[in-house]
Parts: sequence; structure tokens; C-alpha cells
Amino acid sequence: MSGPLEGVKVVDITTNISGPSLTMILADLGAEVIKIERPNIGDDARRMGPLWEGDGVYYLHINRNKRSIVINLKEEEGKNIVYRLVENADVFVENFRYGKADSLGFGYEKLKEINESLIYCSLSAYGQSGEKRHKPGYDAILQADTGIMGINGTEEGGVARAAVSILDQGSAMWGALGVVSALYHRKETGKGQKVETSLYETGVFWTGYHLLSYMATGEEPKKMGSNHAAFAPYGDFATKDDPIMIGISNDSLFQKLCNVVGKEEWTRDPRFRTNPDRVKNRKVLNELLEDEFRKDTAKNWIEKLEAGGIPSSVIQRISQVLDDPQLESTEMLVSVPHDNIKELKLPRLPVQMSDTPLEIKKSPPKLGEDTADILHELGLKEEEIRKLEERGVIQA
Amino acid sequence: MSGPLEGVKVVDITTNISGPSLTMILADLGAEVIKIERPNIGDDARRMGPLWEGDGVYYLHINRNKRSIVINLKEEEGKNIVYRLVENADVFVENFRYGKADSLGFGYEKLKEINESLIYCSLSAYGQSGEKRHKPGYDAILQADTGIMGINGTEEGGVARAAVSILDQGSAMWGALGVVSALYHRKETGKGQKVETSLYETGVFWTGYHLLSYMATGEEPKKMGSNHAAFAPYGDFATKDDPIMIGISNDSLFQKLCNVVGKEEWTRDPRFRTNPDRVKNRKVLNELLEDEFRKDTAKNWIEKLEAGGIPSSVIQRISQVLDDPQLESTEMLVSVPHDNIKELKLPRLPVQMSDTPLEIKKSPPKLGEDTADILHELGLKEEEIRKLEERGVIQA
Repeated sequence: MSGPLEGVKVVDITTNISGPSLTMILADLGAEVIKIERPNIGDDARRMGPLWEGDGVYYLHINRNKRSIVINLKEEEGKNIVYRLVENADVFVENFRYGKADSLGFGYEKLKEINESLIYCSLSAYGQSGEKRHKPGYDAILQADTGIMGINGTEEGGVARAAVSILDQGSAMWGALGVVSALYHRKETGKGQKVETSLYETGVFWTGYHLLSYMATGEEPKKMGSNHAAFAPYGDFATKDDPIMIGISNDSLFQKLCNVVGKEEWTRDPRFRTNPDRVKNRKVLNELLEDEFRKDTAKNWIEKLEAGGIPSSVIQRISQVLDDPQLESTEMLVSVPHDNIKELKLPRLPVQMSDTPLEIKKSPPKLGEDTADILHELGLKEEEIRKLEERGVIQA
Repeated sequence: MSGPLEGVKVVDITTNISGPSLTMILADLGAEVIKIERPNIGDDARRMGPLWEGDGVYYLHINRNKRSIVINLKEEEGKNIVYRLVENADVFVENFRYGKADSLGFGYEKLKEINESLIYCSLSAYGQSGEKRHKPGYDAILQADTGIMGINGTEEGGVARAAVSILDQGSAMWGALGVVSALYHRKETGKGQKVETSLYETGVFWTGYHLLSYMATGEEPKKMGSNHAAFAPYGDFATKDDPIMIGISNDSLFQKLCNVVGKEEWTRDPRFRTNPDRVKNRKVLNELLEDEFRKDTAKNWIEKLEAGGIPSSVIQRISQVLDDPQLESTEMLVSVPHDNIKELKLPRLPVQMSDTPLEIKKSPPKLGEDTADILHELGLKEEEIRKLEERGVIQA
């Protein structure tokens, strides 16, 4: 057994980032994922930079453990191949623009006729309802629309998206969770169903704390840099060399911090006694603290803070994350065999399961590398496959 | 049937944000979650600001659909109540510091003796291996340690965390996904297992694209503000009034953009012909584009861009997100009855399931409001409960 979803078959007609991320999660959990791509070009993500020996790095990341079949979906014969795949599948995933799955003949109602217990998952930009459902959207566009960009960064620093794709990847995670939950439910009832998620809904959910803060207080949330509206001191501080990050969420941690910086008297200072006091007097407290932190180096402070039990960290660059012994200890990077890239390593999913360990067994597929195998499995003969290829229906 | 996990029983011994977020996801999916809290104080999140009629808004958000029982875990009799709950449970979730679950008597090996098919989920800051596993950590600390903070924001803007809790909430999502996958697997085999996730692993996974970019190119990823390393033009632009966000990921979208701004000649300009050209000449292209955008208002530009099929958005404040008709159309906010807060609304999970709709049925519990009911369900008599309370083992 190599993953909890072993035996589950997924037909994946998605492209770009969010959809393929969703099916990558299912694939890493052990499902068999058939990735349908269009002739010649395939998934646009294959060409999204930067490239690594010709392949887009995002493509490499989110398409491991999948097989690729090239089908021309404009041809009736091509559609029929998809229908035959769906007949044998447990899950179908699409991330077309609103309405396009229906117009192509791949809507839920149609596929349900073919396979009544199918779990059908739609991942879209703005969801399947509301005026905006027709709009195209990317991660950063939706970060702007759902309020994330408006509170990210610093007031003096200009506009910034959250620097990682929290809506593409986040909606992928919600979709995968919906699919696995539907698989669980189907074990009980035998019934399939439709699962929907979107970048928009994901964005609104990410801002939940800020939406509720506004509803509770009527105060518009602001850009806080590295600080947190609810806690102080909490944020980055300059030292003699590099900045460090600390987080103090309660009064007992504040006492420990005061011990470490040798300022026990602050614990008795009425401006700093409780967290609400410290939040109110954040500015002066931050200045006083920074005066202390400037007296030594980041490395020395982190040692002292760790010894004192204070949540703290240097602010690592990406190259430092790669060199961090913790990365190796947690085995977060997995070597994956690849024809062109000698030392391809990909991050595993951030979840470990003792009885059904997750694996990266297969490198990201070349365009159509599994077309012939998959069609053979559907029962097609060599000769039929050759003719389909001649007619431009598939590429093997 | 009100959720795909109806009938699943979860014993939840977590506190603060990440753990309770994980069990909230399970609760929203229909599981019955028993939240164990310590006497008098309960979950620290109850007091994390801002407060809404006395309750921390984050607490309100991530504890709906749960029941609260107060147990003194320092008492042997208290531990025994937990063991009896575990006997009848499907899932146990903890987010203690490394080693503390074991020392309290709630490690996996111990609980497995009581319930062999239990699914046991550990959510920690740095994972269960490596030097750093002993460190305390919060969302922002781990954002610093996993490289997110180092690339978030703008170069001129100083240090900033991603403004939403992508590690607390993200690790909660991975943990929930692991638990539901384990439940699925258990349906097949009858076997329980241990599921682990952490803020650290989640952070490394979020930066996957940047880690791979660095491995592929050797170039240290930088802070890009609202821009994207792989695409141009992609980012925010000043207009006559408010800034707008656009995203152009391919050449055909660039042509459409040129039409909308009346600069068809740019499509023939060798500096801008392909996406790699535009990425290389991002600075001059951004300047030329902004000159055009400054000629009209954000509202007018968004109308024109939408008509032209260009992914675009204004950069909404949190209050604007709340007023957006799309929020209502997607029913992302759900009214929840609450004794003290008249108009409590909470964001639903960003996933919809046609056959097993997700609901928010129960407001976040008051401390120990379900202690007596839960103990009754375990078979305890009124008199026994009263005596346990007298001895300080529980609070009812």
C-alpha cells in the first residue's frame, strides 16, 4: 500500500496551476491520475518560467505521479475517449472557465449519465454563481479582489501580493479535501456527487480573521508588515547585523523575553503589563526592544532567545531554507528520477501517514508519454491507436 | 445527511489557532467534535483580540460546530475521562509541544492500546524530527524560517509576513486532508494510523515554486511586490484614482490588453512580443502601461478590461470585500445564532458538496457548556458528575 487513495482513479482535464495542484495532491495520496492534454502544446504550465532543462519548474512540481494522455477534445472521437475514461473513473476534475465544461460535453449532468457514482470536482476563479463567475482570474487578481493584497506588506511599501500562491494552491487543497470527503461518503452510501471550490471562496476564507475583526470593531484592517494586530511585541527587529523575528502571544512569554533582554522592570511597567497594554503601546515597546537587540548579532540573539523559550527566527532567504538541516531532517525534498534533469528534487506533501506512506514514484510526464498505454488499458488495439493518431484524435 | 463525515467522532485536545482550525474543518464536514479545555481559562484563543462581545474573533471563527468539555488533565481521573472518550472515538487531534502528548499520557502508542483503529493526528510547529522540533513557533515565526517572509512585500517596504495565517490555517488543511484520507483508508482495511503535519512542512511546501526556481537557476528569489517573476505585465498600476491589478500570462492576453489600451503597436514591438521578452523588459513596459492607465479612473479601466477579457481587479479593502455582491452570491458568510452577538456571521468552508451540504449548525461553545451532556453520554450519573466537579476534575 503506497498511499491512502490507492485504487482510486482520477480523470484530470485541468491546466495551469490550481487544477493540476489539486490532482497532484490526489496523486501523491496514491490515486492513479490520468492527465488529459491537448495536442502539440499540452498544459500551458509546461512553458511557465523559469525553465529547468526546458520544463517549467511549476509544471515539474505539480505534475509528478501522473500519466499524460494527449486527446483532441474538438473531435467527437476525442470526446468519446474521455467518456470511456470517465466510465472507469472514480473522480473527474475540471478547471475550465464558467460554462465551458458544459459546452464541451463534460458537464456534471452529462458525465453522471455515463457514471452515476462519479465524483465531479469543479475548480474555478470566482465560483459557479454571482456576476463575477464569468470573469477570468489568477491568483494575484483574486488576492486583490478578496482583500488579501490590501492588507499585505507595509503601509510605506506599496502594493504586494502574498508571495506564495495561496489561492491557486489553497483552492487545490480545498478541492482535494472535498474530493476525499466525497470518496469517504461514497464508501458509506455508494453515491457520487459534485464538489465545487474556487479561488474567490478560498480568498474570502483566508481573510476570515480580518473580516470578523472588521465586523466586530468597525475598524478597517491595515497593513501590519511583520506585526500582528492582536499581539505585541510581535514582528521583526533590527540587530547588530540581520533582522530577527519574535512572537510574544501572552504575558508569560513577555516575562521570559524581558529576562532574556535583561529588562525585568518592563514586566512591572503599566504600559506593558498585559497584552492589550502592549498592543496599545506597541510603537514605544518596539523601539525600546530594538535598542536592546541592536547591541548584539542576530545569531547570538536567536541562541539566547531559544534558550529562554521565546518563539524566534532569523528571516531566511530561499537559499538558506534549502541549506537548513531541518529541511533534511524532515525529508521535505524528495529525489525524483528524470531523463533530462540530473538532480530533480521536489517537495513532498506536508503530511505524513504511518500506515500508508506518501511517495513520489513517477517524474512529471512528457507530453502524451502514456497515451498508448492508457488506450491499451481501455482495450484498444495497436491498429486502432495508429488510426486515431492518423486522424489527429490523439498523440501517442 | 448534513456533511460527508457525519457519524465520525473526533476528540480534540488542541488549543490556539492551527489545531482548532483543523478540527473546525472536520466539524464543518459533519464530524462530531468534542473540544477538551482546561478549567477556568479554556483555550487561549478565547481571549485573543479583537474581542466581539467578550469573545476573541478568531476563537469564534474556528470553533463553531464543536462541543466543549472542561477536564483537568493534571488529575488521573481527568486523564481517564479522556481515555473513555478516545475509546469511542474515530479521531484524536493534538497540537502540544514536542514530547508533551507522550508525557501527559496521550501519545499515539498509549491511545492505540485503548482504541486500535484510532486515527491519531499530531500538528506541530517544526515537525516530529530534526533539531528544531523542540522549538516553539507561531505562524509568523515559521514564515520567517521557511523563506516566505524573505520574499513577501516589496524591496523598499521592509519585512512583512503574508498577511493571512497561511501556516496556521494551511497546516490545519493538510492535517484535515490526512485525517479524511486515513478515514477513507480505514473503510477499506479497518486500520487506524498516525497522521502528522506541521507549520514548517507547510511553509516549505508553500515556497515550492521558489525553491525549485532557485535550484533551476541559482538566482535568489526577490521580493516582487505585486509582480510575478514568471509573467509580465503582471501587477498593480496607478490610475487617475485608485490602483488596479492586472495579470497577463500569455501572448494572446497581451494582444487583448494592447487593444484595450489602444496600443496595438506594442504587439509588434520586439521588446514585448513574447512573455520572456516582456519579463526581460518589465520595467519599461510597466512604465508605458502606467502612463496609459493614468488617463482614466480605476472603475472605468476595470470595465474596459473586463469587456476585453483581461484578468483584472481593483485592490479591495476588507470593508469592500464585505460589501461585494459576489460575497452574497456565493453565500460565503453564514448567519450563526449566538447568545451575545446579535449578527454573528462566519465564513463557511470554501468547498461545496451537492449531496452532503456543509452547514454551520452550532455557535462556538461557551467554556464547558457541553461537559454534563458529554459525560452523560459516557454513562455517568448526575451524582458522579457532581462529585467529579467537587474534586476539581471537570467543570460542568
